[in-house]
Amino acid sequence: MKQSHLFSKTRKDAPKDEVSKNAQLLIRAGYIHKEMAGVYSFLPLGLRVIEKITDIIRDELNKAGCQELKMTTLQRKEIWEQTDRWRNDLDGGIWFKTELNGGSELGLAFTHEEALANIMKDHINSYKDLPKYAYQFQTKFRNELRAKSGILRGREFLMKDLYDFSKNKEEHEDFYEKMKGVYMNIFTRAGIGENTYMTISSGGSFSKYSYEFQTICEAGEDILVYDPEKKIAINKGDFSDEVFSDFDLNKDDYNFQEAKSIEVGDIYTLGEKYSSALDLKYTDEKGEEHPVYMGSYGIGVPRLMGAIVEIFADSNGIVWPESVSPFAVHLVQVGDSDTVNAEAEKIYTELVENNIEVLWDDRDSRPGQKFADSDLIGIPHRIVVSEKTIEAEKLEYKKRTDQNGDASMMSLEEIVKNIQ
Amino acid sequence: MKQSHLFSKTRKDAPKDEVSKNAQLLIRAGYIHKEMAGVYSFLPLGLRVIEKITDIIRDELNKAGCQELKMTTLQRKEIWEQTDRWRNDLDGGIWFKTELNGGSELGLAFTHEEALANIMKDHINSYKDLPKYAYQFQTKFRNELRAKSGILRGREFLMKDLYDFSKNKEEHEDFYEKMKGVYMNIFTRAGIGENTYMTISSGGSFSKYSYEFQTICEAGEDILVYDPEKKIAINKGDFSDEVFSDFDLNKDDYNFQEAKSIEVGDIYTLGEKYSSALDLKYTDEKGEEHPVYMGSYGIGVPRLMGAIVEIFADSNGIVWPESVSPFAVHLVQVGDSDTVNAEAEKIYTELVENNIEVLWDDRDSRPGQKFADSDLIGIPHRIVVSEKTIEAEKLEYKKRTDQNGDASMMSLEEIVKNIQ
Repeated sequence: MKQSHLFSKTRKDAPKDEVSKNAQLLIRAGYIHKEMAGVYSFLPLGLRVIEKITDIIRDELNKAGCQELKMTTLQRKEIWEQTDRWRNDLDGGIWFKTELNGGSELGLAFTHEEALANIMKDHINSYKDLPKYAYQFQTKFRNELRAKSGILRGREFLMKDLYDFSKNKEEHEDFYEKMKGVYMNIFTRAGIGENTYMTISSGGSFSKYSYEFQTICEAGEDILVYDPEKKIAINKGDFSDEVFSDFDLNKDDYNFQEAKSIEVGDIYTLGEKYSSALDLKYTDEKGEEHPVYMGSYGIGVPRLMGAIVEIFADSNGIVWPESVSPFAVHLVQVGDSDTVNAEAEKIYTELVENNIEVLWDDRDSRPGQKFADSDLIGIPHRIVVSEKTIEAEKLEYKKRTDQNGDASMMSLEEIVKNIQ
Repeated sequence: MKQSHLFSKTRKDAPKDEVSKNAQLLIRAGYIHKEMAGVYSFLPLGLRVIEKITDIIRDELNKAGCQELKMTTLQRKEIWEQTDRWRNDLDGGIWFKTELNGGSELGLAFTHEEALANIMKDHINSYKDLPKYAYQFQTKFRNELRAKSGILRGREFLMKDLYDFSKNKEEHEDFYEKMKGVYMNIFTRAGIGENTYMTISSGGSFSKYSYEFQTICEAGEDILVYDPEKKIAINKGDFSDEVFSDFDLNKDDYNFQEAKSIEVGDIYTLGEKYSSALDLKYTDEKGEEHPVYMGSYGIGVPRLMGAIVEIFADSNGIVWPESVSPFAVHLVQVGDSDTVNAEAEKIYTELVENNIEVLWDDRDSRPGQKFADSDLIGIPHRIVVSEKTIEAEKLEYKKRTDQNGDASMMSLEEIVKNIQ
């Protein structure tokens, strides 16, 4: 894509009321637009990152036998009253509510356990219908009191929420175990595997402990106690002798450190809470009825994107891992003589023919501006075409992560090999 | 995909309160779930159709130089007050509203002209920044008084909305003309080209006439006057001598008929209305400021899907055009001996290796039920594998559109050739 064609522009300063690093950088680089605190539009560059992340998640979940659907934002009060979650005092008044013409109250979905359990009543009758795994990417609305963390904590944000519908605890636990691995695959593919720990925390209502995925990050709101070598992590609030005894671990075997962290995913056992309340049941081989056994598995997509920005950004801007970058290559054209134009076009075409996604900076701007913008936007591979490179019969190539090194002079062939 | 794996089931009857044919069929076949009047969740089969349609639209718009973004549902009152569209009496009270903790009123987006014009203020300054074309697929919320048409008229629905930002009327009109062709391409690729007419209707505020895309359909709320041979159509309300004189046409040259129709798309000139109100302007070559000239171009994705269902369905169920069908082939396995299982698996694998999307009915159900479900679900190509077909060393093949004909006995190779 030609950068002159992109409607978004970079800017020097973020809005004054924006205090988070992730949103400041993403706004300055033209990825997002702040509509209000905790509510961001995703501009073309930002939407491309969101789509790279959703593609990774979708791929991993489909491989694990999960099916995608899309539920609704508008939620009927009656369904939520059955689980006593219509209350306004829930988690600090987390509901946005609205009303139909005529005055019936409706909610804007802040999660979908109730909605999906209710849908499943039409599709689950027998043990033969189980297990089933259904997920969606859908906007959640949470009326947060504080929304000062940019896209790490939105009032409106895209969430991947997956639910399992199992016959019993054992069948659910098999899937729960499998999801531990799937989640780590997702975070690894998104580039934050090394920074992310499957973390023991005090459980929900159905188990003494549950697992969160915590990523070490200065902007995080949690504190993680972890051993980076042995890859064990516990939420600071749950770090106690009891945990060690429950997991049969010896504290002296580990070298624990502390760091701020952000929860990038969670996996919960829900048990029969929602299925009992909403009357979602199945008949077993003997004709006996049982409530379906459920779990839920969340990943906030913009939160993951924001965590990536927070972790890898340097003083010059964003640094994307290759897997989630909006483009693989930033082709920076310096000069606009016919020769340079023709050469840039040739390089662009060859890269695209090699199935490499390229943002081509063909703008009429100063080279210094172009390089600063390129650093700010954070695409992993940068190629410069100029009179100088044409003369040298090579290209200037630099990785975004290699901030202090000089650019190398390389042939296109070598660069393509480097990238693929 | 194995049908036993799909969580949705077919059902004999739609909910009693569902009066529209499209929603009745889509619910019975397991494509959608009714949450409340005008609000539907899309189950895996339904989401696949939505994605086929969005892929067609996205492809056509990207080819035309448009860029995708994603704006927000939550909308600030202040922006909408600038165009006097915060009023509750707008188009019959079409706003859903909500409020933040603390009490500030917010709207749920029913359209995004204001939101995007406001975003563009950060990105458009000079004539060099124009024209730009930006679109999204995003949920719209419309508090319709009546919502009895299934997915043809939703209170919450996915819309493709595109906006052009041009220097002046002429530049806008060039794009508007181009979009006429792009829209017809989209409807043709979605299978309703023959039923769809670019229709003259009385214009908005900026031109005497504008164009809608009307599809002939019994469930439609409009009445179309059209000549099917000469491909000219006028909204009945606007059919007057004045139209013929304005377009320099001779009424006697045409053979007009009347039919009910549904508006599947509209293309509007907005002029300077939103840019003036929101102060979106650019500086020309001489340093003079002008408001940006705008247009908007909509397609309701579920409405298009519902229109396709209404138009092609027969007494046995849905009939999808190939381009939007959730799968290309319905592979119906009759019998569950080891031989039949192995043969069905072999055929499934070979089809998938040919990049053909297959729903494989591997369920433990009676053949009659399987064939009835297959008709209801409406996948264009049906292949039957049974002891009989194995004996014949051929497969039974039938098109969904060929309702009364017998199935043909064909080799897999012949079938694949037929499909591709």
